[in-house]
Amino acid sequence: MKKGQLLYEGKAKRLYATEDPSILFVEYKDSATAFNGEKKEEIAGKGVLNNRITTLLFEKLQENGIASHFVKRLSDHEQLVRKVDIIPIELVVRNTAAGSLAQRLGLEEGTPLKRPIVEFYYKNDDLGDPHISTEHIDVLGIATAEEVQALYEGGLKVNDVLRPIFEEVGVELIDFKLEFGRDQDGNVLLADEISPDTCRLWDAKTKQKLDKDVFRRNLGSLTESYEIILTRLGGQ
Amino acid sequence: MKKGQLLYEGKAKRLYATEDPSILFVEYKDSATAFNGEKKEEIAGKGVLNNRITTLLFEKLQENGIASHFVKRLSDHEQLVRKVDIIPIELVVRNTAAGSLAQRLGLEEGTPLKRPIVEFYYKNDDLGDPHISTEHIDVLGIATAEEVQALYEGGLKVNDVLRPIFEEVGVELIDFKLEFGRDQDGNVLLADEISPDTCRLWDAKTKQKLDKDVFRRNLGSLTESYEIILTRLGGQ
Ligand SMILES: Nc1ncnc2c1ncn2[C@@H]1O[C@H](COP(=O)(O)OP(=O)(O)OP(=O)(O)O)[C@@H](O)[C@H]1O
Ligand SMILES: Nc1ncnc2c1ncn2[C@@H]1O[C@H](COP(=O)(O)OP(=O)(O)OP(=O)(O)O)[C@@H](O)[C@H]1O
Ligand SMILES: [Mg+2]
Ligand SMILES: [Mg+2]
Repeated sequence: MKKGQLLYEGKAKRLYATEDPSILFVEYKDSATAFNGEKKEEIAGKGVLNNRITTLLFEKLQENGIASHFVKRLSDHEQLVRKVDIIPIELVVRNTAAGSLAQRLGLEEGTPLKRPIVEFYYKNDDLGDPHISTEHIDVLGIATAEEVQALYEGGLKVNDVLRPIFEEVGVELIDFKLEFGRDQDGNVLLADEISPDTCRLWDAKTKQKLDKDVFRRNLGSLTESYEIILTRLGGQ
Repeated sequence: MKKGQLLYEGKAKRLYATEDPSILFVEYKDSATAFNGEKKEEIAGKGVLNNRITTLLFEKLQENGIASHFVKRLSDHEQLVRKVDIIPIELVVRNTAAGSLAQRLGLEEGTPLKRPIVEFYYKNDDLGDPHISTEHIDVLGIATAEEVQALYEGGLKVNDVLRPIFEEVGVELIDFKLEFGRDQDGNVLLADEISPDTCRLWDAKTKQKLDKDVFRRNLGSLTESYEIILTRLGGQ
Protein backbone atom coordinates (compact mmCIF):
# COMPACT_ATOMS: atom_id res chain seq x y z
CA MET A 1 0.00 0.00 0.00
CA LYS A 2 1.30 3.45 -0.89
CA LYS A 3 0.70 6.45 1.35
CA GLY A 4 -1.27 8.90 -0.77
CA GLN A 5 -2.73 12.32 -0.15
CA LEU A 6 -3.18 13.69 3.37
CA LEU A 7 -6.96 13.66 3.88
CA TYR A 8 -7.28 14.92 7.43
CA GLU A 9 -5.01 16.08 10.19
CA GLY A 10 -6.54 15.78 13.64
CA LYS A 11 -5.06 16.49 17.03
CA ALA A 12 -3.68 12.96 17.48
CA LYS A 13 -3.62 11.35 14.05
CA ARG A 14 -3.24 12.01 10.33
CA LEU A 15 -5.32 10.17 7.74
CA TYR A 16 -3.92 9.47 4.28
CA ALA A 17 -5.49 7.98 1.18
CA THR A 18 -4.13 4.73 -0.31
CA GLU A 19 -4.54 3.32 -3.82
CA ASP A 20 -7.57 1.42 -2.44
CA PRO A 21 -10.43 3.91 -1.84
CA SER A 22 -11.81 1.74 0.95
CA ILE A 23 -8.51 1.74 2.89
CA LEU A 24 -6.77 4.53 4.81
CA PHE A 25 -3.33 5.04 6.25
CA VAL A 26 -3.43 6.30 9.84
CA GLU A 27 -0.39 7.98 11.30
CA TYR A 28 -0.22 8.38 15.08
CA LYS A 29 1.30 11.74 16.03
CA ASP A 30 3.38 12.60 19.07
CA SER A 31 1.04 15.45 20.05
CA ALA A 32 -0.85 15.49 23.30
CA THR A 33 -3.84 17.83 23.61
CA ALA A 34 -6.56 18.32 26.20
CA PHE A 35 -9.47 20.61 26.97
CA ASN A 36 -10.53 20.81 23.34
CA GLY A 37 -7.00 21.71 22.22
CA GLU A 38 -6.29 24.41 24.84
CA LYS A 39 -3.46 22.43 26.47
CA LYS A 40 -0.96 21.12 23.95
CA GLU A 41 2.47 19.48 23.95
CA GLU A 42 4.72 17.36 21.76
CA ILE A 43 5.64 14.15 23.59
CA ALA A 44 8.20 11.97 21.82
CA GLY A 45 7.15 8.33 21.82
CA LYS A 46 3.45 8.90 22.40
CA GLY A 47 2.44 8.07 18.82
CA VAL A 48 4.31 4.77 18.81
CA LEU A 49 2.74 3.76 22.12
CA ASN A 50 -0.81 4.60 21.08
CA ASN A 51 -0.35 2.85 17.75
CA ARG A 52 0.84 -0.31 19.52
CA ILE A 53 -1.78 -0.25 22.26
CA THR A 54 -4.64 0.44 19.84
CA THR A 55 -3.41 -2.40 17.61
CA LEU A 56 -3.29 -4.79 20.53
CA LEU A 57 -6.77 -3.88 21.71
CA PHE A 58 -8.41 -3.97 18.26
CA GLU A 59 -6.84 -7.41 17.75
CA LYS A 60 -8.29 -8.64 21.05
CA LEU A 61 -11.68 -7.23 20.07
CA GLN A 62 -11.58 -8.94 16.68
CA GLU A 63 -10.66 -12.25 18.35
CA ASN A 64 -13.84 -11.73 20.35
CA GLY A 65 -16.03 -11.14 17.34
CA ILE A 66 -16.17 -7.33 17.41
CA ALA A 67 -15.85 -5.94 13.90
CA SER A 68 -13.76 -2.80 13.54
CA HIS A 69 -12.01 -0.65 10.96
CA PHE A 70 -8.64 -2.09 11.97
CA VAL A 71 -6.67 -3.89 9.25
CA LYS A 72 -3.07 -4.01 10.48
CA ARG A 73 -0.18 -2.12 11.99
CA LEU A 74 2.45 -1.20 9.42
CA SER A 75 5.21 0.53 11.33
CA ASP A 76 5.94 2.44 14.52
CA HIS A 77 3.54 5.24 13.66
CA GLU A 78 1.33 3.72 10.97
CA GLN A 79 -1.75 1.59 10.68
CA LEU A 80 -4.07 0.54 7.87
CA VAL A 81 -7.79 0.86 8.51
CA ARG A 82 -10.99 0.57 6.55
CA LYS A 83 -12.37 3.94 5.61
CA VAL A 84 -15.73 4.77 7.18
CA ASP A 85 -18.07 7.73 7.46
CA ILE A 86 -17.69 8.59 11.09
CA ILE A 87 -21.05 8.88 12.88
CA PRO A 88 -20.80 12.21 14.77
CA ILE A 89 -21.47 10.64 18.13
CA GLU A 90 -18.83 9.98 20.75
CA LEU A 91 -19.85 7.06 22.91
CA VAL A 92 -18.55 7.03 26.45
CA VAL A 93 -18.81 3.80 28.42
CA ARG A 94 -18.26 4.05 32.15
CA ASN A 95 -17.72 1.54 34.94
CA THR A 96 -16.61 3.97 37.64
CA ALA A 97 -17.39 7.66 38.19
CA ALA A 98 -14.60 9.97 37.02
CA GLY A 99 -14.08 13.15 35.04
CA SER A 100 -17.21 14.85 33.73
CA LEU A 101 -19.56 12.20 35.13
CA ALA A 102 -18.24 12.69 38.66
CA GLN A 103 -18.74 16.44 38.21
CA ARG A 104 -22.17 16.18 36.55
CA LEU A 105 -23.67 13.89 39.18
CA GLY A 106 -21.69 15.12 42.18
CA LEU A 107 -20.07 11.71 42.75
CA GLU A 108 -16.59 11.25 44.15
CA GLU A 109 -14.06 10.11 41.55
CA GLY A 110 -13.62 6.38 41.95
CA THR A 111 -17.20 5.64 42.97
CA PRO A 112 -18.12 2.35 41.26
CA LEU A 113 -21.32 2.53 39.22
CA LYS A 114 -23.84 -0.19 39.97
CA ARG A 115 -23.65 -1.15 36.28
CA PRO A 116 -21.78 0.06 33.18
CA ILE A 117 -23.47 3.05 31.56
CA VAL A 118 -23.30 4.43 28.05
CA GLU A 119 -23.32 8.16 27.34
CA PHE A 120 -23.68 9.94 24.01
CA TYR A 121 -21.87 13.14 23.07
CA TYR A 122 -22.44 15.09 19.88
CA LYS A 123 -19.06 15.08 18.08
CA ASN A 124 -18.99 18.77 17.23
CA ASP A 125 -16.00 20.87 18.27
CA ASP A 126 -17.84 24.18 17.76
CA LEU A 127 -20.46 23.14 20.29
CA GLY A 128 -17.87 21.63 22.65
CA ASP A 129 -19.03 18.01 22.16
CA PRO A 130 -22.22 18.40 24.24
CA HIS A 131 -23.83 15.57 26.17
CA ILE A 132 -26.93 14.43 24.29
CA SER A 133 -29.70 11.87 24.62
CA THR A 134 -31.13 9.44 22.09
CA GLU A 135 -33.98 11.95 21.58
CA HIS A 136 -31.46 14.61 20.51
CA ILE A 137 -29.82 12.13 18.14
CA ASP A 138 -33.22 11.51 16.61
CA VAL A 139 -34.14 15.16 16.05
CA LEU A 140 -30.65 15.93 14.76
CA GLY A 141 -31.02 13.01 12.36
CA ILE A 142 -27.36 12.02 12.81
CA ALA A 143 -28.07 8.30 13.32
CA THR A 144 -31.04 5.98 12.92
CA ALA A 145 -32.65 4.25 15.88
CA GLU A 146 -31.10 0.96 14.68
CA GLU A 147 -27.65 2.55 14.56
CA VAL A 148 -28.07 3.99 18.05
CA GLN A 149 -28.99 0.52 19.25
CA ALA A 150 -25.90 -0.91 17.51
CA LEU A 151 -23.70 1.75 19.13
CA TYR A 152 -25.18 1.16 22.56
CA GLU A 153 -24.83 -2.61 22.37
CA GLY A 154 -21.42 -2.31 20.72
CA GLY A 155 -20.19 -0.07 23.53
CA LEU A 156 -21.26 -2.51 26.21
CA LYS A 157 -19.77 -5.44 24.30
CA VAL A 158 -16.42 -3.69 23.94
CA ASN A 159 -16.54 -3.08 27.67
CA ASP A 160 -17.33 -6.75 28.38
CA VAL A 161 -14.28 -7.80 26.36
CA LEU A 162 -11.78 -5.15 27.49
CA ARG A 163 -12.61 -4.95 31.17
CA PRO A 164 -11.40 -8.48 32.06
CA ILE A 165 -8.35 -8.12 29.79
CA PHE A 166 -7.25 -5.11 31.83
CA GLU A 167 -8.37 -6.65 35.11
CA GLU A 168 -6.09 -9.66 34.56
CA VAL A 169 -3.08 -7.36 34.40
CA GLY A 170 -4.00 -5.27 37.40
CA VAL A 171 -5.59 -2.35 35.58
CA GLU A 172 -9.08 -0.94 36.16
CA LEU A 173 -10.95 0.18 33.07
CA ILE A 174 -12.71 3.23 34.50
CA ASP A 175 -14.24 4.61 31.29
CA PHE A 176 -13.51 5.00 27.59
CA LYS A 177 -14.60 6.84 24.45
CA LEU A 178 -15.50 5.09 21.20
CA GLU A 179 -16.27 6.27 17.69
CA PHE A 180 -18.15 4.28 15.09
CA GLY A 181 -18.62 4.74 11.37
CA ARG A 182 -20.52 3.40 8.39
CA ASP A 183 -18.63 1.43 5.76
CA GLN A 184 -19.57 1.48 2.06
CA ASP A 185 -22.35 -1.05 2.68
CA GLY A 186 -23.80 0.90 5.60
CA ASN A 187 -22.48 -1.52 8.21
CA VAL A 188 -21.65 0.10 11.53
CA LEU A 189 -17.98 -0.53 12.39
CA LEU A 190 -15.99 0.40 15.46
CA ALA A 191 -13.36 2.95 14.34
CA ASP A 192 -10.80 5.52 15.56
CA GLU A 193 -8.51 4.39 18.40
CA ILE A 194 -8.61 2.78 21.82
CA SER A 195 -5.63 3.93 23.82
CA PRO A 196 -4.72 5.64 27.08
CA ASP A 197 -5.69 8.85 25.24
CA THR A 198 -9.28 7.65 25.04
CA CYS A 199 -9.58 5.42 28.15
CA ARG A 200 -9.23 6.05 31.86
CA LEU A 201 -6.99 3.30 33.23
CA TRP A 202 -6.04 3.05 36.88
CA ASP A 203 -3.63 0.69 38.56
CA ALA A 204 -6.00 -1.64 40.43
CA LYS A 205 -3.99 -1.58 43.66
CA THR A 206 -2.47 1.88 43.89
CA LYS A 207 -5.18 3.67 41.83
CA GLN A 208 -2.33 5.42 39.99
CA LYS A 209 -3.61 7.00 36.79
CA LEU A 210 -2.08 5.44 33.66
CA ASP A 211 -3.89 7.49 31.02
CA LYS A 212 -4.23 10.97 29.54
CA ASP A 213 -5.27 12.40 32.92
CA VAL A 214 -1.51 12.25 33.67
CA PHE A 215 -1.17 14.94 30.99
CA ARG A 216 -4.44 16.79 31.73
CA ARG A 217 -3.60 17.09 35.43
CA ASN A 218 0.22 17.23 35.25
CA LEU A 219 0.72 14.02 37.24
CA GLY A 220 4.07 12.93 35.79
CA SER A 221 5.42 11.30 32.65
CA LEU A 222 2.76 10.40 30.13
CA THR A 223 4.98 8.00 28.18
CA GLU A 224 6.03 6.14 31.35
CA SER A 225 2.34 5.58 32.12
CA TYR A 226 1.52 4.46 28.58
CA GLU A 227 4.60 2.15 28.64
CA ILE A 228 3.19 0.46 31.73
CA ILE A 229 -0.11 -0.16 29.94
CA LEU A 230 1.62 -1.54 26.83
CA THR A 231 3.90 -3.81 28.86
CA ARG A 232 1.10 -5.12 31.07
CA LEU A 233 -0.94 -5.95 27.97
CA GLY A 234 1.99 -8.08 26.81
CA GLY A 235 3.17 -5.68 24.13
CA GLN A 236 6.55 -4.01 23.79
CA MET B 1 -58.38 24.37 55.84
CA LYS B 2 -56.09 26.36 58.13
CA LYS B 3 -52.69 27.59 56.97
CA GLY B 4 -50.20 25.94 59.29
CA GLN B 5 -46.44 25.99 59.57
CA LEU B 6 -44.25 27.24 56.71
CA LEU B 7 -42.58 24.07 55.39
CA TYR B 8 -40.52 25.42 52.51
CA GLU B 9 -39.83 28.75 50.90
CA GLY B 10 -38.68 28.47 47.28
CA LYS B 11 -37.90 31.17 44.76
CA ALA B 12 -41.48 31.35 43.46
CA LYS B 13 -43.70 29.72 46.07
CA ARG B 14 -44.13 29.01 49.76
CA LEU B 15 -45.47 25.69 51.03
CA TYR B 16 -47.45 25.51 54.28
CA ALA B 17 -48.81 22.58 56.25
CA THR B 18 -52.56 22.21 56.79
CA GLU B 19 -54.44 20.18 59.43
CA ASP B 20 -54.53 17.35 56.84
CA PRO B 21 -51.01 15.87 56.51
CA SER B 22 -51.70 14.87 52.90
CA ILE B 23 -52.64 18.44 51.86
CA LEU B 24 -50.47 21.55 51.48
CA PHE B 25 -51.15 25.24 51.09
CA VAL B 26 -49.18 26.77 48.22
CA GLU B 27 -48.65 30.52 48.16
CA TYR B 28 -47.51 32.08 44.88
CA LYS B 29 -44.96 34.84 45.49
CA ASP B 30 -44.39 38.01 43.47
CA SER B 31 -40.68 37.21 43.03
CA ALA B 32 -39.13 36.66 39.63
CA THR B 33 -35.77 34.89 39.49
CA ALA B 34 -33.59 33.55 36.69
CA PHE B 35 -30.19 31.98 36.11
CA ASN B 36 -30.42 29.88 39.26
CA GLY B 37 -31.34 32.93 41.36
CA GLU B 38 -28.68 35.32 40.08
CA LYS B 39 -31.23 37.71 38.53
CA LYS B 40 -33.99 38.64 40.96
CA GLU B 41 -36.86 41.13 41.15
CA GLU B 42 -40.17 41.66 42.93
CA ILE B 43 -42.95 42.03 40.37
CA ALA B 44 -46.35 42.98 41.82
CA GLY B 45 -49.10 40.85 40.32
CA LYS B 46 -46.94 37.96 39.17
CA GLY B 47 -48.03 35.58 41.93
CA VAL B 48 -51.72 36.14 41.23
CA LEU B 49 -51.22 35.54 37.52
CA ASN B 50 -49.22 32.33 37.95
CA ASN B 51 -51.70 31.03 40.50
CA ARG B 52 -54.59 31.66 38.08
CA ILE B 53 -52.81 30.28 35.01
CA THR B 54 -51.57 27.17 36.82
CA THR B 55 -55.08 26.58 38.17
CA LEU B 56 -56.59 26.88 34.71
CA LEU B 57 -54.05 24.50 33.16
CA PHE B 58 -54.21 21.88 35.91
CA GLU B 59 -58.02 21.94 35.57
CA LYS B 60 -57.76 21.38 31.81
CA LEU B 61 -55.33 18.51 32.41
CA GLN B 62 -57.63 16.91 34.96
CA GLU B 63 -60.55 17.18 32.51
CA ASN B 64 -58.32 15.24 30.14
CA GLY B 65 -57.55 12.49 32.62
CA ILE B 66 -54.13 13.65 33.81
CA ALA B 67 -53.84 13.20 37.55
CA SER B 68 -52.03 15.95 39.42
CA HIS B 69 -51.44 17.32 42.90
CA PHE B 70 -53.90 20.17 42.26
CA VAL B 71 -56.91 20.35 44.55
CA LYS B 72 -58.25 23.91 44.20
CA ARG B 73 -57.46 27.59 44.10
CA LEU B 74 -58.34 29.34 47.38
CA SER B 75 -57.53 32.98 46.82
CA ASP B 76 -55.43 35.35 44.73
CA HIS B 77 -52.15 33.85 45.93
CA GLU B 78 -53.20 30.52 47.36
CA GLN B 79 -53.85 27.00 46.23
CA LEU B 80 -54.44 23.66 47.91
CA VAL B 81 -52.45 20.71 46.58
CA ARG B 82 -51.82 17.13 47.56
CA LYS B 83 -48.46 16.70 49.28
CA VAL B 84 -45.99 14.54 47.36
CA ASP B 85 -42.33 13.56 47.60
CA ILE B 86 -40.91 15.41 44.64
CA ILE B 87 -38.86 13.15 42.35
CA PRO B 88 -35.61 15.11 41.83
CA ILE B 89 -35.95 15.14 38.06
CA GLU B 90 -37.04 18.15 36.02
CA LEU B 91 -38.70 17.01 32.84
CA VAL B 92 -38.48 19.36 29.89
CA VAL B 93 -40.77 18.71 26.93
CA ARG B 94 -39.94 20.56 23.74
CA ASN B 95 -41.75 21.15 20.46
CA THR B 96 -39.46 23.84 19.07
CA ALA B 97 -35.76 24.55 19.64
CA ALA B 98 -35.15 27.38 22.12
CA GLY B 99 -33.02 28.21 25.14
CA SER B 100 -30.51 25.58 26.22
CA LEU B 101 -31.54 23.11 23.51
CA ALA B 102 -30.86 25.62 20.73
CA GLN B 103 -27.45 26.25 22.32
CA ARG B 104 -26.63 22.60 22.97
CA LEU B 105 -27.43 21.42 19.45
CA GLY B 106 -26.50 24.59 17.57
CA LEU B 107 -30.05 25.09 16.25
CA GLU B 108 -31.58 28.47 15.60
CA GLU B 109 -34.22 29.45 18.15
CA GLY B 110 -37.60 28.75 16.61
CA THR B 111 -36.54 25.68 14.62
CA PRO B 112 -39.44 23.22 14.87
CA LEU B 113 -38.41 19.75 16.07
CA LYS B 114 -39.61 16.88 13.91
CA ARG B 115 -41.35 15.48 16.99
CA PRO B 116 -41.75 16.49 20.64
CA ILE B 117 -38.79 15.43 22.77
CA VAL B 118 -38.42 14.86 26.47
CA GLU B 119 -35.29 15.80 28.40
CA PHE B 120 -34.32 14.97 31.95
CA TYR B 121 -32.47 17.28 34.30
CA TYR B 122 -31.24 16.34 37.75
CA LYS B 123 -33.04 18.72 40.15
CA ASN B 124 -30.03 19.70 42.20
CA ASP B 125 -29.19 23.38 42.64
CA ASP B 126 -25.62 22.69 43.82
CA LEU B 127 -24.87 20.89 40.55
CA GLY B 128 -26.75 23.48 38.47
CA ASP B 129 -29.57 21.11 37.43
CA PRO B 130 -27.42 19.12 34.94
CA HIS B 131 -28.82 17.42 31.86
CA ILE B 132 -28.96 13.66 32.50
CA SER B 133 -29.99 10.50 30.70
CA THR B 134 -32.09 7.58 31.86
CA GLU B 135 -28.81 5.73 32.54
CA HIS B 136 -27.74 8.45 34.97
CA ILE B 137 -31.15 8.28 36.66
CA ASP B 138 -30.63 4.54 37.10
CA VAL B 139 -27.15 4.77 38.65
CA LEU B 140 -28.23 7.67 40.86
CA GLY B 141 -31.18 5.56 41.99
CA ILE B 142 -33.47 8.60 42.06
CA ALA B 143 -36.34 6.93 40.17
CA THR B 144 -37.27 3.42 39.09
CA ALA B 145 -37.44 2.42 35.43
CA GLU B 146 -41.24 2.31 35.76
CA GLU B 147 -41.31 5.82 37.18
CA VAL B 148 -39.07 7.11 34.38
CA GLN B 149 -41.48 5.56 31.90
CA ALA B 150 -44.41 7.22 33.70
CA LEU B 151 -42.62 10.58 33.62
CA TYR B 152 -41.75 10.25 29.96
CA GLU B 153 -45.27 9.27 28.92
CA GLY B 154 -46.79 11.80 31.31
CA GLY B 155 -44.70 14.57 29.77
CA LEU B 156 -45.80 13.73 26.25
CA LYS B 157 -49.43 13.41 27.34
CA VAL B 158 -49.37 16.84 29.02
CA ASN B 159 -47.94 18.21 25.78
CA ASP B 160 -50.68 16.53 23.73
CA VAL B 161 -53.32 18.18 25.90
CA LEU B 162 -51.78 21.64 26.34
CA ARG B 163 -50.43 22.25 22.85
CA PRO B 164 -53.85 22.44 21.11
CA ILE B 165 -55.31 24.46 23.99
CA PHE B 166 -52.66 27.13 23.40
CA GLU B 167 -52.83 26.76 19.63
CA GLU B 168 -56.55 27.57 19.63
CA VAL B 169 -55.81 30.92 21.24
CA GLY B 170 -52.90 31.81 18.99
CA VAL B 171 -50.08 30.76 21.28
CA GLU B 172 -47.26 28.36 20.45
CA LEU B 173 -46.19 26.02 23.23
CA ILE B 174 -42.44 25.96 22.58
CA ASP B 175 -41.32 23.98 25.63
CA PHE B 176 -42.10 23.52 29.31
CA LYS B 177 -40.73 22.07 32.54
CA LEU B 178 -42.63 19.62 34.72
CA GLU B 179 -42.06 18.13 38.15
CA PHE B 180 -43.62 14.95 39.42
CA GLY B 181 -43.84 13.42 42.87
CA ARG B 182 -44.91 10.30 44.73
CA ASP B 183 -48.03 10.43 46.89
CA GLN B 184 -48.44 8.38 50.08
CA ASP B 185 -49.37 5.30 48.03
CA GLY B 186 -46.39 5.63 45.68
CA ASN B 187 -48.49 6.88 42.76
CA VAL B 188 -46.65 9.28 40.48
CA LEU B 189 -48.53 12.59 40.30
CA LEU B 190 -47.84 15.69 38.25
CA ALA B 191 -46.96 18.47 40.73
CA ASP B 192 -45.48 21.97 41.09
CA GLU B 193 -46.80 24.60 38.62
CA ILE B 194 -47.41 25.12 34.91
CA SER B 195 -47.19 28.81 34.15
CA PRO B 196 -45.31 31.28 31.94
CA ASP B 197 -42.50 30.87 34.51
CA THR B 198 -42.10 27.23 33.47
CA CYS B 199 -43.24 27.29 29.81
CA ARG B 200 -42.01 29.07 26.71
CA LEU B 201 -45.06 30.60 25.04
CA TRP B 202 -44.84 32.61 21.82
CA ASP B 203 -47.55 34.51 20.02
CA ALA B 204 -48.18 32.28 17.00
CA LYS B 205 -48.24 35.20 14.53
CA THR B 206 -45.76 37.75 15.84
CA LYS B 207 -43.54 35.24 17.73
CA GLN B 208 -43.61 37.69 20.64
CA LYS B 209 -42.40 35.99 23.80
CA LEU B 210 -45.10 35.78 26.48
CA ASP B 211 -43.15 33.97 29.18
CA LYS B 212 -40.28 34.31 31.64
CA ASP B 213 -37.83 35.00 28.81
CA VAL B 214 -39.35 38.53 28.91
CA PHE B 215 -37.74 38.82 32.35
CA ARG B 216 -34.57 36.79 31.58
CA ARG B 217 -33.82 38.88 28.50
CA ASN B 218 -35.33 42.23 29.57
CA LEU B 219 -37.92 42.28 26.77
CA GLY B 220 -40.61 44.38 28.46
CA SER B 221 -43.32 43.98 31.07
CA LEU B 222 -43.57 40.48 32.48
CA THR B 223 -47.03 40.99 33.94
CA GLU B 224 -48.40 42.36 30.65
CA SER B 225 -47.20 39.19 28.92
CA TYR B 226 -48.61 36.90 31.59
CA GLU B 227 -51.92 38.86 31.45
CA ILE B 228 -52.12 38.11 27.72
CA ILE B 229 -51.70 34.39 28.41
CA LEU B 230 -54.32 34.41 31.17
CA THR B 231 -56.82 36.36 29.05
CA ARG B 232 -56.31 34.22 25.97
CA LEU B 233 -56.90 31.10 28.06
CA GLY B 234 -60.26 32.60 29.04
CA GLY B 235 -59.25 33.52 32.58
CA GLN B 236 -59.25 36.93 34.21
N1 LIG C 1 -11.74 4.43 9.77
C1 LIG C 1 -11.87 5.74 9.70
N2 LIG C 1 -12.31 6.34 8.56
C2 LIG C 1 -12.45 7.67 8.51
N3 LIG C 1 -12.19 8.51 9.51
C3 LIG C 1 -11.75 7.97 10.67
C4 LIG C 1 -11.58 6.58 10.83
N4 LIG C 1 -11.16 6.34 12.09
C5 LIG C 1 -11.09 7.54 12.70
N5 LIG C 1 -11.44 8.54 11.86
C6 LIG C 1 -11.46 9.99 12.13
O1 LIG C 1 -10.13 10.46 11.94
C7 LIG C 1 -9.84 11.52 12.82
C8 LIG C 1 -8.70 11.08 13.70
O2 LIG C 1 -7.94 12.11 14.00
P1 LIG C 1 -7.75 12.63 15.50
O3 LIG C 1 -8.09 11.61 16.52
O4 LIG C 1 -6.42 13.25 15.52
O5 LIG C 1 -8.91 13.71 15.44
P2 LIG C 1 -9.26 14.71 16.62
O6 LIG C 1 -8.22 15.72 16.81
O7 LIG C 1 -9.68 13.87 17.78
O8 LIG C 1 -10.43 15.51 16.01
P3 LIG C 1 -11.88 15.09 15.73
O9 LIG C 1 -12.05 13.67 16.24
O10 LIG C 1 -12.67 16.08 16.50
O11 LIG C 1 -12.00 15.20 14.24
C9 LIG C 1 -11.09 11.74 13.64
O12 LIG C 1 -11.90 12.76 13.08
C10 LIG C 1 -11.79 10.40 13.55
O13 LIG C 1 -13.19 10.53 13.75
N1 LIG D 1 -47.36 18.81 45.75
C1 LIG D 1 -46.16 19.11 46.23
N2 LIG D 1 -45.70 18.53 47.37
C2 LIG D 1 -44.49 18.82 47.86
N3 LIG D 1 -43.63 19.68 47.29
C3 LIG D 1 -44.02 20.28 46.13
C4 LIG D 1 -45.30 20.03 45.55
N4 LIG D 1 -45.37 20.75 44.41
C5 LIG D 1 -44.22 21.42 44.29
N5 LIG D 1 -43.39 21.16 45.32
C6 LIG D 1 -42.05 21.71 45.57
O1 LIG D 1 -42.22 22.97 46.20
C7 LIG D 1 -41.23 23.88 45.83
C8 LIG D 1 -41.89 25.02 45.12
O2 LIG D 1 -41.23 26.16 45.35
P1 LIG D 1 -40.52 26.98 44.21
O3 LIG D 1 -41.04 26.71 42.86
O4 LIG D 1 -40.53 28.37 44.71
O5 LIG D 1 -39.10 26.31 44.38
P2 LIG D 1 -37.80 26.72 43.56
O6 LIG D 1 -37.32 28.03 43.97
O7 LIG D 1 -38.10 26.45 42.12
O8 LIG D 1 -36.76 25.73 44.13
P3 LIG D 1 -36.59 24.23 43.92
O9 LIG D 1 -37.65 23.79 42.95
O10 LIG D 1 -35.21 24.14 43.39
O11 LIG D 1 -36.79 23.65 45.30
C9 LIG D 1 -40.31 23.13 44.85
O12 LIG D 1 -39.22 22.58 45.55
C10 LIG D 1 -41.22 22.03 44.35
O13 LIG D 1 -40.48 20.90 43.90
MG1 LIG E 1 -9.58 11.89 18.19
MG1 LIG F 1 -39.76 26.05 41.10
